Amino acid sequence: MATINKKRQLGRPVSIVGAGLSQFGAFPDKDTRDLFVEAFQDMAQNMDRGFDIQDIECAYVGNYSSDLFEHQGHTAPIVADWLGITPIPITRIENACASSGSALREGVMAIASGMYDVVLVGGMEKMTNLPTDGVTDVLASAADGLYEVPAGLTFPGIFGAIAKAHMDRYETNLDHLLKVAIKNHSNGALNPKAQFQQTVTEMMERRISRAQERGQDVPDYKTEMDFLQDPRANPWIAWPLRLYDCAPITDGASCVLLVSEEIAHNFTDMPINIAGIGQATGKPLHDADELTSLSAAKAASQQAYDMAGITVADIDLAEVHDCFTIAEIVATEDLGFFAPGEGPRAVDEGRTTLDGDHPINSSGGLKAKGHPVGASGVGQVIEIYHQLRGEAGERQVKKANPTVGLTHNVGGTGGTCVVNVLRRES
Amino acid sequence: MATINKKRQLGRPVSIVGAGLSQFGAFPDKDTRDLFVEAFQDMAQNMDRGFDIQDIECAYVGNYSSDLFEHQGHTAPIVADWLGITPIPITRIENACASSGSALREGVMAIASGMYDVVLVGGMEKMTNLPTDGVTDVLASAADGLYEVPAGLTFPGIFGAIAKAHMDRYETNLDHLLKVAIKNHSNGALNPKAQFQQTVTEMMERRISRAQERGQDVPDYKTEMDFLQDPRANPWIAWPLRLYDCAPITDGASCVLLVSEEIAHNFTDMPINIAGIGQATGKPLHDADELTSLSAAKAASQQAYDMAGITVADIDLAEVHDCFTIAEIVATEDLGFFAPGEGPRAVDEGRTTLDGDHPINSSGGLKAKGHPVGASGVGQVIEIYHQLRGEAGERQVKKANPTVGLTHNVGGTGGTCVVNVLRRES
Repeated sequence: MATINKKRQLGRPVSIVGAGLSQFGAFPDKDTRDLFVEAFQDMAQNMDRGFDIQDIECAYVGNYSSDLFEHQGHTAPIVADWLGITPIPITRIENACASSGSALREGVMAIASGMYDVVLVGGMEKMTNLPTDGVTDVLASAADGLYEVPAGLTFPGIFGAIAKAHMDRYETNLDHLLKVAIKNHSNGALNPKAQFQQTVTEMMERRISRAQERGQDVPDYKTEMDFLQDPRANPWIAWPLRLYDCAPITDGASCVLLVSEEIAHNFTDMPINIAGIGQATGKPLHDADELTSLSAAKAASQQAYDMAGITVADIDLAEVHDCFTIAEIVATEDLGFFAPGEGPRAVDEGRTTLDGDHPINSSGGLKAKGHPVGASGVGQVIEIYHQLRGEAGERQVKKANPTVGLTHNVGGTGGTCVVNVLRRES
Repeated sequence: MATINKKRQLGRPVSIVGAGLSQFGAFPDKDTRDLFVEAFQDMAQNMDRGFDIQDIECAYVGNYSSDLFEHQGHTAPIVADWLGITPIPITRIENACASSGSALREGVMAIASGMYDVVLVGGMEKMTNLPTDGVTDVLASAADGLYEVPAGLTFPGIFGAIAKAHMDRYETNLDHLLKVAIKNHSNGALNPKAQFQQTVTEMMERRISRAQERGQDVPDYKTEMDFLQDPRANPWIAWPLRLYDCAPITDGASCVLLVSEEIAHNFTDMPINIAGIGQATGKPLHDADELTSLSAAKAASQQAYDMAGITVADIDLAEVHDCFTIAEIVATEDLGFFAPGEGPRAVDEGRTTLDGDHPINSSGGLKAKGHPVGASGVGQVIEIYHQLRGEAGERQVKKANPTVGLTHNVGGTGGTCVVNVLRRES
C-alpha cells in the first residue's frame, strides 16, 4: 500500500496580521451579514498599517446554522457581497461550535498550498430574537439525531452528564464549577467586547440593590459563592449545572487576516504565527469510551504540539471551549495542563486566573464574553493574538512576555476539536 | 501595501485515484449517513489496487443542508463515525449546490499544503421523504432571504427569469430547452447509477402504452418533441420552464480519493490529475449585472484554465450544472465553449451529444442522473474521471482518447461557482 509521510507540516508558514470582533450580545436589529461586516470593519480600522480590501484573495466563514436560525443557506456569498469582496472565492465551513476553528485551518492550508497569500477567515452566528423552534433545539441538532436527541439529550443535559461523571470519578464538586464561572466573569468584566462585562460580585450587588429598591427581602449574600448557591439567583438548568455554569446565547462575529509569513511584515511589525494546527474527530457521545475526557481534544492538541515542536510546558496561556464550566475543567486536563482529575484543584488554587501560571480564558471565555457558536473559534484566536502582542489592556495576563498561546475549540461533545498553537516571533 | 503574487499555483500536484457513487434516486429507508457509506463502499470496492482505510488522513464532505432537510447539524463527524475513520479530521463544506465542488477544492489545497497525502472528499444530500416544510422552500433558502425570497422567488422562478432573459436577448426558444432534456435523458439511460435511466422516447412510449392499457385516449405523439410539448405530459413549472426542464429531487452521495501526485501510482496505473481549480463568488441575482450569464462561472473557469495552462479548445468534454435546462445552455456559453447566444444553436446542431465535438453531461447531468445537491459537484468529477479513463461504458464519449475534462458546479444562481480541469496523464 501507499507509503505515506504521516508527519504534518505546512508547505510554508502562515501569520495572523489583523483581527476584528463585533460586539458580542443580543442585537435585535442585526442579521448574520451585519454582524460579520461589523467584525470586518473592526479589523480593517485596527490594522497596524491599514490594508487594501482588494488584497484579500480568498475567504472562509465558520457558521453553525444560519439555515435553522435564520432560514438562510448559502450564507457565505451573501457575506462576500456585503463586504464588497466578490468575486473572490468564499466558503462556509461547518463543524458545529468548532466551525470557525475549522475555518481557520482551511485558511492556513489555503495559504500553505501556495494558492493564496492573503486570506480572510471569520465566523458568525445570529442566535437571538429569531422565529425558530428554540435555540436549544437548534443546538441539540449538533448531537446525533438518531441516537442522542431521541433519548431526550440537549447540550445542558449532555454536559450535565459529563459533570456528574467527573464528580463521580474525581473529587470534583459543585463549587469547582462555580469558581470557573466567577473567574471567567471576572475576566469578561475587563473585555469591552464581552456580552457580560460584570463580575459575579457586581451581579450579586445589583441583585441586592434591586431587592432594596423594590422593598423585597434583601438576600444575605456574604460572598459570590453564597450568591451562586442561591437557586433563586442561579437556578438549576440540568443538574449539576446551574445557570451560571452555562455559556449564554449570543449574536456575534469574528475575523482575522491570514498571510503567508514572508509578507507578514508588510502588514505589521508584530505578526502572530500559526505554529501548530490540529483537528480531530471524536465518536458521538453515545459511542465514546468515557465521559470525563474528549478524545478529539487529546488527539488535536497532540497534533498541534507536534507541528509546533513544543510541549505543553511551553504554553503561556490558553482560550478553551467553556460552553459549560465543566467543559473548561475537562479541557485543561485533555490539553495536558493538569493531570486527569487535577483540573478542579487547579481552579481552587487560582492557577487559571490572569495572574496564575496557566491563565485560561482571559477574554472571559464563552461563559462571559459570549458564545455566538460559529464565531467562537476565531474569537478565541483573536484573544490570543492580542495577548501575545501585549495589547489586551486591563485583562492582559500577568506573565512577562507571553510568547506561546493555545486555542481549543469544540464542536458538539467533541465530535470535532480544533487546537491551534500561536507564537509571537521572538 | 503588500506585494502579492496573484498567480495561483499549487505547492504540489494532486491526483484522483478512486471514485464512488451511491445509487441516485429516492430511498425512504436511507439517511445522509447511509448514502455516504454506500458511496464510500462503491469507491473502496472499485479501487484499482484496493486500499487501506487507515491511509485516509483527512476528509471533507459537501452538504447543503442536513440542518433543514433532516434537522441534523454537525453531520461530518457522524459520517466519520459511520465510516469508521475517526479520529481523522473531517469538515463539512457548504456552498449550496456547489458544496462538494468547494469540498474538492479544500481537499486539493489540504494536500498541496503539505499537511496530508491522502484525503477523502465527498458530498451527500438526503432530500426525499422528509418531514420538512417542503424541498422547494429549503432550496429557496439558498437565495437571499432579505431581497430575493420575499419577492416570491424560488429557484424554478429564478431560472425561469434567466431563460426568459436569454430568449429575449438571443434566438433561444422553448425547443432548445427541451432538446437539452432529451439529450441528457438519452445519456442518463446509459448510466446505471442515474435516477432516470430512460430516454424521453421510452417515457413517451410508456405513457402511450399506459393509456392503451387503461382504455384512455391514446396520445398522438410522433416525436419526443410532441410528447414534451404536451402540457399533460410535461406541465409548466415556472414559465418558460416545464417539468422536463427541471432537475429532480434526489437522494445520493459521491466521493473521490485524492492523493499527492507523487504517490498516485501506488493506487492506480491511471490516475486523473487535477490540473486546474477555480472558484468564484457572484453577487446575488438581485444585484447582478445581467441575467444571461453567471459572472462567477466566467471568473472560476478563467482561474482553472490559467492554472491548468490550457485554453477552452483543449477541453474534450464537460459536466456542467444543469439544474435547469437553461442553466446548461448558459454554462456552455460562460465556459467559452460557445459564444454568448450561440449555446442554443450548438444544441440544435448536436454538438453537445456523446458524439459531438463538445460532449456535455455524458452522465445524464443533474437532469437525468439526479441532483442530490451537496453530492453533485463531486458526482460531476466522478463522471469525468471515468470518461478520461475510458471506462464509462455505453455512455463513453465517442472522441478518441479524451484527455482533458471539465466540471462546472454552481451554488444558487451563481453566488458560488467551482470549475475543475481534470487531465489524464499522457
